[in-house]
Amino acid sequence: MRPLKALLPLDEALSLCLELAAPIDRRETLPISEALHRVVAGDVRAPLDVPPADRAAMDGYAVVARDTSHAGKSSPAVLRVQEKVHAGGVPAKRARKGRCTQIATGAPMPRGTDAVVMVEDTERERDTVEVFRPVRPRENVSARGSDIRKGSLVLARGEVLTPAKVGALAAIGRKDVSVYARPRVALLVTGDEVVRPGVRLGPGQVYDINSHTMAAAVREAGGEPIPLGCIPDRLEALRDSLTTAVHEDIVVFSGGSSVGEKDLVIDALRSLGDLLFHGIAIKPGRPTVLGRVRGKAVLGMPGNPTSCLSNCYVLLAPMLRRMAHLPPPAGHVVEVPLAARIRSPLGKVEVHTIRVVDGKAVPAFKESGAITSMAHADGYIVIPADVGLVEKGETVRVTLF
Amino acid sequence: MRPLKALLPLDEALSLCLELAAPIDRRETLPISEALHRVVAGDVRAPLDVPPADRAAMDGYAVVARDTSHAGKSSPAVLRVQEKVHAGGVPAKRARKGRCTQIATGAPMPRGTDAVVMVEDTERERDTVEVFRPVRPRENVSARGSDIRKGSLVLARGEVLTPAKVGALAAIGRKDVSVYARPRVALLVTGDEVVRPGVRLGPGQVYDINSHTMAAAVREAGGEPIPLGCIPDRLEALRDSLTTAVHEDIVVFSGGSSVGEKDLVIDALRSLGDLLFHGIAIKPGRPTVLGRVRGKAVLGMPGNPTSCLSNCYVLLAPMLRRMAHLPPPAGHVVEVPLAARIRSPLGKVEVHTIRVVDGKAVPAFKESGAITSMAHADGYIVIPADVGLVEKGETVRVTLF
Repeated sequence: MRPLKALLPLDEALSLCLELAAPIDRRETLPISEALHRVVAGDVRAPLDVPPADRAAMDGYAVVARDTSHAGKSSPAVLRVQEKVHAGGVPAKRARKGRCTQIATGAPMPRGTDAVVMVEDTERERDTVEVFRPVRPRENVSARGSDIRKGSLVLARGEVLTPAKVGALAAIGRKDVSVYARPRVALLVTGDEVVRPGVRLGPGQVYDINSHTMAAAVREAGGEPIPLGCIPDRLEALRDSLTTAVHEDIVVFSGGSSVGEKDLVIDALRSLGDLLFHGIAIKPGRPTVLGRVRGKAVLGMPGNPTSCLSNCYVLLAPMLRRMAHLPPPAGHVVEVPLAARIRSPLGKVEVHTIRVVDGKAVPAFKESGAITSMAHADGYIVIPADVGLVEKGETVRVTLF
Repeated sequence: MRPLKALLPLDEALSLCLELAAPIDRRETLPISEALHRVVAGDVRAPLDVPPADRAAMDGYAVVARDTSHAGKSSPAVLRVQEKVHAGGVPAKRARKGRCTQIATGAPMPRGTDAVVMVEDTERERDTVEVFRPVRPRENVSARGSDIRKGSLVLARGEVLTPAKVGALAAIGRKDVSVYARPRVALLVTGDEVVRPGVRLGPGQVYDINSHTMAAAVREAGGEPIPLGCIPDRLEALRDSLTTAVHEDIVVFSGGSSVGEKDLVIDALRSLGDLLFHGIAIKPGRPTVLGRVRGKAVLGMPGNPTSCLSNCYVLLAPMLRRMAHLPPPAGHVVEVPLAARIRSPLGKVEVHTIRVVDGKAVPAFKESGAITSMAHADGYIVIPADVGLVEKGETVRVTLF
């Protein structure tokens, strides 16, 4: 057995992790209807003006504005209605003094007209209309290119597609878009005792939790999980699996990174590439390994389910977001008072799970082997390495799951 | 033309919308690997203890604790190692005084042993081991059922599956889970001028933006978009589409809810069911319609892309979250000072889009016809109906997209 020696401070461990998590250049082209939340891989410029022509912004009458300049409640301007244009229609007649065109929102403005009188400010009488309020030139008109000008930057490389940004692509007629590929994350689980859910447990066996929590955490961080199953605790099997796994963008193991005799991930890593660290000053999640094989990061997580998932949040998610060109996650944080004192080990960062009950942060951590430490929690707080005690009543920042 | 008359206050409109958005009872069974962020449709109880037996929580030696009670740095307890158990292995020998079992984290405890001495507190000498620190009974042991007790509630109906909750399902051996079906949302776009992105624009035509923004907003609110395409502005076509569309859980139109002559959604609604409101005191998004056809909500959005999407956030998302059994969304709010004064119409709630620049809220609203009002914004603030002015420097709550 090989005891863990010096533990690396969390910030140094995270720096080493991020160094191996370069943004991915690979792109793919997707229909805009499937591109929500993806990252735009190149600047998108408008091939046309939006709107493509001056359009009515209201239902009413397209007029020459100066024809209405003296209009008032008791002295309406009276105009002859020469034509009617629906949205989707095209005006046949151009403007003439004293004439107007009945127009629907979105319809192109007849040539020579420069404003729309709202229907609410008019009264219709067969083929004439009384206008009770003057309009200024361009009033109630959406000018050609006022939304998006031809040639202008609609979306910049690196923007994340929100519903509105998807809409902007539609507005310029784009049916698909080039986005960065999601980082492909090979997931391996070690441990001869681990079996997949759905089968009957034999003596000494437990169900595989980590494949499922890691895959879910990968999805949330913008990655694509590639589950490669459970690997027997034998060096050759591990080396083979690892050699296959590094075809993906990054490899994540769980188990096999502790100090047991059969913890062979370290041996496998050393024989195939470099070992960058082994052991982090964090609780839970101490027996964590980072290696590099053929230029790819190989992150070895503890087998304990809460330690493993906690490290997914603390180490893996920032790596994947960087690889995916995603910004740090926005929000999902609440600030509430702590309901009970927490003692925390000095010299280690602690990730302590929390339930939020009646606006208070109730410590929810059981033990790192217990999945319910996280499953029955709402989020977590991070206690710095130099803090040994967080007092009841202190305000804490809870990052929600 | 039929001018909009009295506008309904937003809170009353939202109440009517929510009344028609009853939570959906339909369920589906999914593999746990595809159930992330879904809502559990029934209480889940544990069919077994987790862990299924007492297990070592550390690598080391399983002992009878009282054999170590006098152990110290200079006076180690010396125990004979009678067996070695890996994770996945099963101990063959039970405890005997003065003997111990070498054990790996996760391996089942030999019968009669009650504690694990950590490897760090020992020194091995062939088939004996020196123990330099006493352990208490149950120390470094994960007791059977300590994580999840057989028969206990693992997940309650209505819980949203986080990575850890997916892990809890795996821990009890579940390979699939019953979740509530996503609300199916029929999406219709009206307007003879609207064509789909990817084709060439004819005169007077514009690209369909709303199908895409509505579908994206539906996805974000936990719904499943069912795009039914563009409907010609003819009453019969609308009636036919609506009759088909109400087979889904809810129907959302865009366009055709304004006051133009060709705005036929209202006529179609009246002839097939009830019209519940027409016109909301909100900016943008005023010409909005709610109807009920065969018990299903039919929400008619304005055709202007920003009005339409703004109402998706304000009206449709709360409806869908209620139908999907989802709680109100957590977070995604920042509080920042306003960079410039905003004038807002009295008597109307205003949804004003915002860019967050250098920690300040910069007003980003252009006009409701402009998709860039939203696409070039980071989020929005809601200005109450009785507020006419928000001063520069006031702190505002920006809901991020």
